[in-house]
Amino acid sequence: MNRTAAELAGFLGGRLTGSGDVRIGSVSELDTAGDGDLTYAEPRFVDRIAGCRASCVLVGTDTEPSLLTGRTSIGVPNPKAAFARAARWLMPPPVPPPGVHPTAIIGDGVDLGHRVHVGAYTVIDDGVRVGNNTAIHSGCYIAGGCQIGSDCTIHANTVLYAGVEIGDRVVLHAGVVLGSDGFGYVREDDGYVQFPQLGKIRLEDDVDVGANSTLDRGSLGRTLVEQGAKIDNLVHVAHNVRIGKRTVIAAQTGVSGSCDIGSDAVIAGQVGIADHVRIDDGAIVGAQCGIPSGKRVRAGKVFWGTPARPLDDIKVQQAHISRLPKMAAELASLRAEVDRLREAVGRSEDPPA
Amino acid sequence: MNRTAAELAGFLGGRLTGSGDVRIGSVSELDTAGDGDLTYAEPRFVDRIAGCRASCVLVGTDTEPSLLTGRTSIGVPNPKAAFARAARWLMPPPVPPPGVHPTAIIGDGVDLGHRVHVGAYTVIDDGVRVGNNTAIHSGCYIAGGCQIGSDCTIHANTVLYAGVEIGDRVVLHAGVVLGSDGFGYVREDDGYVQFPQLGKIRLEDDVDVGANSTLDRGSLGRTLVEQGAKIDNLVHVAHNVRIGKRTVIAAQTGVSGSCDIGSDAVIAGQVGIADHVRIDDGAIVGAQCGIPSGKRVRAGKVFWGTPARPLDDIKVQQAHISRLPKMAAELASLRAEVDRLREAVGRSEDPPA
Amino acid sequence: MNRTAAELAGFLGGRLTGSGDVRIGSVSELDTAGDGDLTYAEPRFVDRIAGCRASCVLVGTDTEPSLLTGRTSIGVPNPKAAFARAARWLMPPPVPPPGVHPTAIIGDGVDLGHRVHVGAYTVIDDGVRVGNNTAIHSGCYIAGGCQIGSDCTIHANTVLYAGVEIGDRVVLHAGVVLGSDGFGYVREDDGYVQFPQLGKIRLEDDVDVGANSTLDRGSLGRTLVEQGAKIDNLVHVAHNVRIGKRTVIAAQTGVSGSCDIGSDAVIAGQVGIADHVRIDDGAIVGAQCGIPSGKRVRAGKVFWGTPARPLDDIKVQQAHISRLPKMAAELASLRAEVDRLREAVGRSEDPPA
Repeated sequence: MNRTAAELAGFLGGRLTGSGDVRIGSVSELDTAGDGDLTYAEPRFVDRIAGCRASCVLVGTDTEPSLLTGRTSIGVPNPKAAFARAARWLMPPPVPPPGVHPTAIIGDGVDLGHRVHVGAYTVIDDGVRVGNNTAIHSGCYIAGGCQIGSDCTIHANTVLYAGVEIGDRVVLHAGVVLGSDGFGYVREDDGYVQFPQLGKIRLEDDVDVGANSTLDRGSLGRTLVEQGAKIDNLVHVAHNVRIGKRTVIAAQTGVSGSCDIGSDAVIAGQVGIADHVRIDDGAIVGAQCGIPSGKRVRAGKVFWGTPARPLDDIKVQQAHISRLPKMAAELASLRAEVDRLREAVGRSEDPPA
Repeated sequence: MNRTAAELAGFLGGRLTGSGDVRIGSVSELDTAGDGDLTYAEPRFVDRIAGCRASCVLVGTDTEPSLLTGRTSIGVPNPKAAFARAARWLMPPPVPPPGVHPTAIIGDGVDLGHRVHVGAYTVIDDGVRVGNNTAIHSGCYIAGGCQIGSDCTIHANTVLYAGVEIGDRVVLHAGVVLGSDGFGYVREDDGYVQFPQLGKIRLEDDVDVGANSTLDRGSLGRTLVEQGAKIDNLVHVAHNVRIGKRTVIAAQTGVSGSCDIGSDAVIAGQVGIADHVRIDDGAIVGAQCGIPSGKRVRAGKVFWGTPARPLDDIKVQQAHISRLPKMAAELASLRAEVDRLREAVGRSEDPPA
Repeated sequence: MNRTAAELAGFLGGRLTGSGDVRIGSVSELDTAGDGDLTYAEPRFVDRIAGCRASCVLVGTDTEPSLLTGRTSIGVPNPKAAFARAARWLMPPPVPPPGVHPTAIIGDGVDLGHRVHVGAYTVIDDGVRVGNNTAIHSGCYIAGGCQIGSDCTIHANTVLYAGVEIGDRVVLHAGVVLGSDGFGYVREDDGYVQFPQLGKIRLEDDVDVGANSTLDRGSLGRTLVEQGAKIDNLVHVAHNVRIGKRTVIAAQTGVSGSCDIGSDAVIAGQVGIADHVRIDDGAIVGAQCGIPSGKRVRAGKVFWGTPARPLDDIKVQQAHISRLPKMAAELASLRAEVDRLREAVGRSEDPPA
């Protein structure tokens, strides 16, 4: 939608500089923006503002005024976050039309809120509850007894097993599977018996889950993803895991059974977390880390490597390892000198002829 | 379903202690169990039995009787396995009603056994055979000529390419893909020609496959998952692989083309197995291992790391590496002493004035 | 289909030796081929030709004639590539019948080319364009405005978000997700704001994508997979990535946001590529590599390890590390000698009594 810079400044609560009448209809990067675009300049990039052709730039409130001369800008405390909010305001994601597609199959006792969208060929089994404004796209399967909050978006071909609970404003991307059996087997002589996978799984408000990620239900307990956690594509979360509030997990990371991950943690991509690991609030775990079974990861240091250790320790060790060729040379040189010394000492120890 | 402890002891073939009349309807963990619950105590946790409030506890046959005074317990050789079997008996997984949903599309010459369930919007192409009691949930696509055994559960939105064969009691979780093309290309000047991916894929009886895992068909030969193997979520199995009986593969592991994995092997999560690797019966491969092309992994030692080696060797090497700072200090100290010695020897070698 | 060796030699432009009348209807491996089969022998395996029972063998043009006596063979420059092309000619993949299944839902303004196949329960939203001979199998969801070229195969249960563009002869295996949101969030005091994910995604001609892989759209820019690139199963490609022409990416590799991967690169399985990495044309990245944020990988050397380095450097370092036990022993021996020397020198320095 088309807005003026003044309207945008009002929406963002920012300080307008320059003309408030310029019209803005789209968003772009600082370097590629053109007429009609909004963009943003983080403090480290303010020197690029001069060459920018956007109609309006979001800048930090302490940006040097001379950099903004002759253009329209809006000063805000966090230009990138303001840009993200402005983009959603200017170009809201398309809202699928409310209504249940005639091909959708709705079971007995299903309670759909107001303005719910259910796409074609989606199947919602008995007893499911769906909150207001939630969209469930085509080809999804929502098994019996699931509880889905308001303002959620469930993209196409997603599967929720029976009894899954998700809060408000949850986004599930295409192909997500929630509530599948945990991977637990007990060995007996002739093979394996499956350990009971009868537990629950709950995603709290504002959780996002990326495409084709899989989150298992609890075995006897519960899998829980707390408010605001963000999970990328192809992530695996096993049974009985807790993921704390606002914790971010990048693509292809795997979390094994019974792990406890705190709030505001950052887990990079392809991390492997063995069972019963405890990750503290605010901890940072680097990409491809491997955290062994039962370990605890504390906040305050970046962890890295397999087995995961503080990155600083690894750097020190790497420095030692990279000095190995020098150490080997020094060792050889010492050996030669010691041999010479022994010879010399031997001579000097010889009784004078 | 509600059972008495005596009935349960009968089902498990265990030795009842205490009242056989207590009624049991559900299962729980040792620490959280309450009235009406069955739980179990592995030998290492018998000291927790005293505080347990379950109506009945499964214990090892050699549990000290005094620990069981005043409560109902059942002695069995393997309490955890007995618990798993009891749970399935007390709380059997819901059986979807037999019958083909009117929206399911069933091709020509499809042979459905007795009491088969086919969910809404599932498509079964020509010539598919499905055994008795098998459930194929909503939104699946079973291409032409697939052979599916009895008592299988195929969860929603699973895809079987043409000609896939699966045995009895196989469980495929949601989003599984079986029989996709292997990843084989031949370079020619102007790009790649796909190597023929015309082979077969067979899963034998009692195989489980986790959500969104993908198993490719053979190129010219066959991909084979043998009886009782268990595969977790988001696992990749390439063309022409054999996975032996009762082998367990945890989440996000990838098995490249033409690997041969024996029986009763345990492959942890996020392991990468390059092409033509041979893993012996009973071998154990630790999480995030990388096994290079053509290698053989023997049983008897835990393998770990990239490239994978016996864990004990890695520990020895790690110990050496962690002594590097001390080695560097010792080297410096030797250097200083050798310099002093050389000086001293030089002096002592000087002809006396 | 059944062909004579002479016809096959004509198709391949190869040189026929032996009888041109033998009939060939199928393909097989050198060691398992039998009557009616075509096979191939790469130069390193020519010694196995003698024992081969195939009706016709594709061999290199410079194969020693005596090895081919008494059998039908066709000499070609690249036997494996010729075999791949011959296999497709002899056993063309089944072409699904043209036509839109009555249960498929086709939106307004959808433009379907000639001989397009649309499977059961596939949903194609408004404004989608599909080229000639393209097959879209069952259960797919093609959101509004997607552009799909000619001769594509889109396997079952694949999802294309709005506006995805794919060229000609593209193959998407089952469960692929194209155009999902990139994983970008901006931290604000009370949680995260999603960075706009409004960009595009384009796959050029001849791209293959394996089962359950996920490729995100650009955030503001574009995700681009260039002509002839081949992507295996369960691969993750984030927003704003470029993958160059004919580049090959094996299973479970993850490519983070804004990476630029050149042409003819080879990326093995389970590689992790952090954001803003640049990989040069023709570079080779070994399995499970981890490439840190912002790094550049050059061609000419195989890269390996985490952080990724030239494999030769890693081998040198590994050799140093494996000599650590010897270094420790040498250090101890030097220490003992130096101690003895110091003692000896001390004595020799003592003024003679």
